[in-house]
Amino acid sequence: MSGPRDAGGLAPLRPVLYDEAADAVRIIDQRRLPAEEAWLALESADAVADAIRTLAVRGAPAIGVAAAYGLAVEARRGAGGPELRLAAERLVRARPTAVNLAWAVRRVSLRIGEGAGALLAEAHAIRDEDEESCRRIGALGAPLLPPGARVLTHCNAGALATAGYGTALGIVRAAREAGRLGEVFADETRPFLQGARLTAWELKRDGIPVTLITDSMAGWLMARGEISAVVVGADRIAANGDVANKIGTYSLAVLASHHAIPFYVAAPWSTLDPATPTGEGIPIEERASDEVVRIAGELVAPEGVPARYPAFDVTPARLVTAIVTERGVLRAPYAAAIAALGAGAPASPGR
Amino acid sequence: MSGPRDAGGLAPLRPVLYDEAADAVRIIDQRRLPAEEAWLALESADAVADAIRTLAVRGAPAIGVAAAYGLAVEARRGAGGPELRLAAERLVRARPTAVNLAWAVRRVSLRIGEGAGALLAEAHAIRDEDEESCRRIGALGAPLLPPGARVLTHCNAGALATAGYGTALGIVRAAREAGRLGEVFADETRPFLQGARLTAWELKRDGIPVTLITDSMAGWLMARGEISAVVVGADRIAANGDVANKIGTYSLAVLASHHAIPFYVAAPWSTLDPATPTGEGIPIEERASDEVVRIAGELVAPEGVPARYPAFDVTPARLVTAIVTERGVLRAPYAAAIAALGAGAPASPGR
Repeated sequence: MSGPRDAGGLAPLRPVLYDEAADAVRIIDQRRLPAEEAWLALESADAVADAIRTLAVRGAPAIGVAAAYGLAVEARRGAGGPELRLAAERLVRARPTAVNLAWAVRRVSLRIGEGAGALLAEAHAIRDEDEESCRRIGALGAPLLPPGARVLTHCNAGALATAGYGTALGIVRAAREAGRLGEVFADETRPFLQGARLTAWELKRDGIPVTLITDSMAGWLMARGEISAVVVGADRIAANGDVANKIGTYSLAVLASHHAIPFYVAAPWSTLDPATPTGEGIPIEERASDEVVRIAGELVAPEGVPARYPAFDVTPARLVTAIVTERGVLRAPYAAAIAALGAGAPASPGR
Repeated sequence: MSGPRDAGGLAPLRPVLYDEAADAVRIIDQRRLPAEEAWLALESADAVADAIRTLAVRGAPAIGVAAAYGLAVEARRGAGGPELRLAAERLVRARPTAVNLAWAVRRVSLRIGEGAGALLAEAHAIRDEDEESCRRIGALGAPLLPPGARVLTHCNAGALATAGYGTALGIVRAAREAGRLGEVFADETRPFLQGARLTAWELKRDGIPVTLITDSMAGWLMARGEISAVVVGADRIAANGDVANKIGTYSLAVLASHHAIPFYVAAPWSTLDPATPTGEGIPIEERASDEVVRIAGELVAPEGVPARYPAFDVTPARLVTAIVTERGVLRAPYAAAIAALGAGAPASPGR
């Protein structure tokens, strides 16, 4: 199935689209990358919820955009208000940690009653604003990096994780455009291998130099002076600046601190959750241990050995050098910094 | 092919044996665990060198024992002194980081000229002494753990990595026998997955509770108070106490230090290398990047993306709480501690 981008592969990568002809949400199936670029057409909110749960679409901003379109498609296919509200609840429950999902669903839900067109317009606005936010995050974040920066990133906080351009990889892209990027080290990010499969794929696609490492190599590269900065995304940021992100992020933050390497978090403002005072309050999704003991379907551990799989961890604000949002670069103390930038702009709808 | 252990699976696990009937070195093929327990019969020193290079046998003490038997088999099959010396050189070059390999080969080489029987007797002695050392390491190390200890280990420093019983897992086994063990967390240890495939397999075989985690989860478990101690093996220990071990060990040491969790290294005395003053002088083997981009034969990254694969890293002595050897428990300053215990016993032959 050919995807909606041009043959040269140079069009900006946008992993979640609305297909007007089919009245469906079209997403790149991220489970099948990098082997093949397959697109799915999702024709209901529940199909979108399934795609979120099974990681066909992942990345905090991207699942927010997909869910927004899912609700719009549901409305266009004739669902009424009560049905839409139930569908919205099911979407929010698809993954518990990322707050952008609940934020986007709530924002579209506010338009229930105004007709399907209003929901679709809101979903389009969320998508467009997200990509615009990513470009702004890139522009604000790139100057934080030294010339020739060698950037370590974890998981995939790229175009694939957003409406387009990326958060952490938005900073990488902007640094590249500004001639400040040396190279990117991508942690493979077990167990789902988002770094190996997705970050390596999208950077290679865009001609950005990337070297793959296992998660266990990051500390050693830091000790040898090979890393200038760590830049990661976020799934939820508490009011005090604590950051929930893909499991393994916390270890990188401790390692960066030990080696006096700056540790930056890049995230749209919608990732900030003022209703959660500290990281302690962020729910951490536990996924099935089968995703750890199997790789590409193959059992790599003895039958029956238990495995843990917390999908996220929480990095305390004290280990975060700065949080780059589209509204500005936040630095400690984060509660005050968030309040200062939050006060100047209307709070997100529904908060 | 059935292996030389009893049907009940309760005989001590010994991964390297001498097969008198076949005049061959018999090893468990560790590349095929945990899916199957297949034994190889190696009929020359070069076959042993190949098995070491391809990781059919791995673990610093185990490759020393295998190389010792390889040289003995070569002698029994009629090789003369000059041929044996060349075979010895090829064995030592099979892997550069572990010092036990060179130590064992040198020790057997000293018997060249005394007849094949002398070489075999020396290899048997190395094997028997290694297992005895592991049991002594276990006895000395177990009391360092708190009751109900939850031990994190990396790679496989177990029976499979030694003549039997294990170094880090020797401490685990001794703690279990003493009723002090809560459970073991095994890092999967990418890229070769020694933790998932080997440590989980041998602990499960012996009924020791083990939970598998990805390498990226260790920091988060430490932050949540779930780890009492880290216990790892070593491939070479410099004269100042710096420790070369499987890539990822250094990150664990930094994380343990950050969380005030003791970090223990378990190794036979033959792992100490007085000829190498500090970790800077330890050669770090770089393996093929193909071993990172493929898992179980499957390509997990885009075709052509480069990957790094330093097979080992060096943990500075200041991050090591204690080094447990069969001669005693060493603590900083390590140079003095090593000298104190080394002085009381004859130096290893050939040093």
